[in-house]
Amino acid sequence: MPTFHAHIAAQTFSSEEKRGLADALNLALHEAMDTPMEDRFIIITEHKEDEFFIHPTFPEMKRSEKRMLVTVTTGISRTVEQKRKLAELVTRYAVEKAGVSQDDISLLIYAIPLENMSFGAGKLVSDAELSMPWVNK
Amino acid sequence: MPTFHAHIAAQTFSSEEKRGLADALNLALHEAMDTPMEDRFIIITEHKEDEFFIHPTFPEMKRSEKRMLVTVTTGISRTVEQKRKLAELVTRYAVEKAGVSQDDISLLIYAIPLENMSFGAGKLVSDAELSMPWVNK
Amino acid sequence: MPTFHAHIAAQTFSSEEKRGLADALNLALHEAMDTPMEDRFIIITEHKEDEFFIHPTFPEMKRSEKRMLVTVTTGISRTVEQKRKLAELVTRYAVEKAGVSQDDISLLIYAIPLENMSFGAGKLVSDAELSMPWVNK
Repeated sequence: MPTFHAHIAAQTFSSEEKRGLADALNLALHEAMDTPMEDRFIIITEHKEDEFFIHPTFPEMKRSEKRMLVTVTTGISRTVEQKRKLAELVTRYAVEKAGVSQDDISLLIYAIPLENMSFGAGKLVSDAELSMPWVNK
Repeated sequence: MPTFHAHIAAQTFSSEEKRGLADALNLALHEAMDTPMEDRFIIITEHKEDEFFIHPTFPEMKRSEKRMLVTVTTGISRTVEQKRKLAELVTRYAVEKAGVSQDDISLLIYAIPLENMSFGAGKLVSDAELSMPWVNK
Repeated sequence: MPTFHAHIAAQTFSSEEKRGLADALNLALHEAMDTPMEDRFIIITEHKEDEFFIHPTFPEMKRSEKRMLVTVTTGISRTVEQKRKLAELVTRYAVEKAGVSQDDISLLIYAIPLENMSFGAGKLVSDAELSMPWVNK
């Protein structure tokens, strides 16, 4: 259940671009961490001009007005290679599908154990693990 | 200071239901982790249709339009049994008090040490710990 | 790339106060953790009355209507002394620059490794570390 939260500037993305961004995050996750495409948990928040401060160039970056902060929460079993791939593909597909620039996506990855997640029904993923072999793939 | 953040679809919950959701999270925490009822730190964010993508059925779930993502940050001392109880009660009380369905609440739990929290006054909880015996109960 | 997210009550802060809050967080970070002033990644979210529940007095606090929840994500190398300083300065400067009261800021600190962050360009900070000696200062 890797879960994304993208923070973007208000009135900077069209509805189509926001949906494209969600598709980009979904596809990047699928390819980097081998999750099913249905494992799609993505939320986006818009912030007004006086609520959004992402430095345009620090450090040695060229961010556009479409710069954003993306957080993703994944299981602790993910390897550095998977995270490297995720960072690479999130940017690649967001450039393709949401019109952002190469340096626009700042990413934070939070790793938590399966006992700290629930897909629903009031049950922890760790307790339901046996029937979900793909959880940690 | 366990702190909840619920992400819901815009225009899907009445004001009364949002308040009921907060009450549900508060009560679930109290019963699962033995916190005082006054230990109530809950925020809710609404997301528009093009900002909210929670899969309706993955994996083997039947989520309604009232599906949501809830995050909660707690101290690292919480046991698996407490987390299991929290997941169970969050759903049970949200069904009762906010009209959600059984599979609607996806939950992520972030565990952080007391030195990473402050209730206010610019002081870490770990530095004030002796006067707050209930912090880790 | 320490990143702040402040959750405030809607219609409680002027635009000038929100900008002052961002400046306060930026300056507190700079002084507590020796980051460059350009290392400025701050987002603010407003919550309506039925989406914002921060207890006004628990525990032994006197919070105003300007009370807020602030989260900050930093690298795992930060010391307790740095966190203590950060909590102290965040409150001090927010009182000065955003008109909040002494007890108004509840803080949660999330610590993640450098391999879990990207400034942009699809690269993890850990992979780019050598050219950014200030990252962990």
